[in-house]
Amino acid sequence: MRRCKNPPYQNISCLVLFLKMLYLIGLGLGDAKDITVKGLEVIKQCSRVYLEAYTSILTVGKEALEDFYGKELILADREIVEQDADGILKDAHQTDVAFLVVGDPFGATTHSDLVLRAVKQGIPYRVVHNASILNAVGCCGLQLYNFGETVSIVFWTDTWKPESFFDKIIKNRKNGMHTLCLLDIKVKEQSVENLMRGKKIFEPPRYMSVNQAAEQLLAVIQNRRLQGQEPEVTENTVCVGLARVGALDQKIASGTLQDMSTVALGDPLHSMIITGILHPLEVDMLKLFAVDKSIFEHH
Amino acid sequence: MRRCKNPPYQNISCLVLFLKMLYLIGLGLGDAKDITVKGLEVIKQCSRVYLEAYTSILTVGKEALEDFYGKELILADREIVEQDADGILKDAHQTDVAFLVVGDPFGATTHSDLVLRAVKQGIPYRVVHNASILNAVGCCGLQLYNFGETVSIVFWTDTWKPESFFDKIIKNRKNGMHTLCLLDIKVKEQSVENLMRGKKIFEPPRYMSVNQAAEQLLAVIQNRRLQGQEPEVTENTVCVGLARVGALDQKIASGTLQDMSTVALGDPLHSMIITGILHPLEVDMLKLFAVDKSIFEHH
Repeated sequence: MRRCKNPPYQNISCLVLFLKMLYLIGLGLGDAKDITVKGLEVIKQCSRVYLEAYTSILTVGKEALEDFYGKELILADREIVEQDADGILKDAHQTDVAFLVVGDPFGATTHSDLVLRAVKQGIPYRVVHNASILNAVGCCGLQLYNFGETVSIVFWTDTWKPESFFDKIIKNRKNGMHTLCLLDIKVKEQSVENLMRGKKIFEPPRYMSVNQAAEQLLAVIQNRRLQGQEPEVTENTVCVGLARVGALDQKIASGTLQDMSTVALGDPLHSMIITGILHPLEVDMLKLFAVDKSIFEHH
Repeated sequence: MRRCKNPPYQNISCLVLFLKMLYLIGLGLGDAKDITVKGLEVIKQCSRVYLEAYTSILTVGKEALEDFYGKELILADREIVEQDADGILKDAHQTDVAFLVVGDPFGATTHSDLVLRAVKQGIPYRVVHNASILNAVGCCGLQLYNFGETVSIVFWTDTWKPESFFDKIIKNRKNGMHTLCLLDIKVKEQSVENLMRGKKIFEPPRYMSVNQAAEQLLAVIQNRRLQGQEPEVTENTVCVGLARVGALDQKIASGTLQDMSTVALGDPLHSMIITGILHPLEVDMLKLFAVDKSIFEHH
């Protein structure tokens, strides 16, 4: 335990060194160095460090993080977090435990359940915040003020093609608001065959691309037209595709929804924005990333 | 200039060291150590470092940041950023310049204008993201997914009492969504007397408290009732007050809007949330911060 010059309880930063607790630490969005100085210091003092590995990814893997932190990381998939939370919290009264989350710990996915369990067991907790995709998308120049409800677009299957996200996008657009679409991530999926045989063999992870998201949106638009509707969002609606936001090789492309179905943004993670009403400064920024500047001429 | 083992243009991280540019760096929300490791490294290599000083504040001042970074900071108030952006960008082709922003550079206030000017002058730019109040408010347990449009609440004067923020809150609430209210900051204000005399004497900075914001909201509710309306948001609506989010001494209080008018949250910055429809997990989290738990009994 580190020693403070002042006695504890007189100096709040000293107090924290004496209390053992659960830390929820955001890693930001790019690579190992996107952690905050505070977050890195905390990790170094923790005896167990978990890495939440099912809601987002960095552009670097577990090994790169371990090298940079000088600590071994325990991968925490959905199963562990949801079914063995008590294992994560074990002894957190007596030793510091860190739970690392890509982005912000209370960003796209909250970890309220873990916090509530900790509190119930009398374990103090602290959050070390970081950038989340929910605010970092501002880098495309659209004002975060002008975003409505965020939606998630899931991978369609042959038999399950939900369209509810589209109605939320329409509602935002009718209110003049942009919509951030978070795109599906499938990790530790089992094929039906392996699932039925009880084999814990997992498919390679899948990350929805902007192309795939745009294709699904275009399909919904076609469905609506078959039902005699002309939806508020069409193939000509201005959209923004973003890949690897915050990383050195991040890519942003603005264009029509049709453009988004073919634009090449490279590796995951991708996100997409369907715009609402565009303000002049927003248009000027989107032009920097335009697939074809002419679509902004009438804006 | 640092040397890379690989020749430039073969290694993208090396490339960045050779290109001189403008960096927009988020500082996060708490103190000096909330900067990212990447952000700190960049600052150390920059020849000029500006600190944007009018849209938000950390819990520590300029001097604490200078000590921690080992660099002198140039305070950039609104006047400098809006009227002397070219001064900030001067020589950024030949030398690295950093522009530091509390929170995220594209958070509550975007700095699109500076980016557009840089691009126009052929100066490359990069963004180092960080936590912003827009995602860090998730720490109270309300799901960021369930937030509608963010509003700003400005200080009323004797003659100017805008109510438009209230209508946005009502719209969000009717949609079941929570509303994050960013509270006014007044820095470098001149009294009417000093303004008329052309004296550049500034009033002390003012930061709106949750109490003040709640008082203004309660006044709007009274106004609406005088007009014969019964608004969707009342003194009994569940709200959350947050102070110094991300700092060691952050405070969160949940309670009714009436409670918010008297709750003691201490030093700035404050933010307030007006809730929409509460989900059970959100209620469980809000109970951790309840002024009076009984208000959650019927939830």
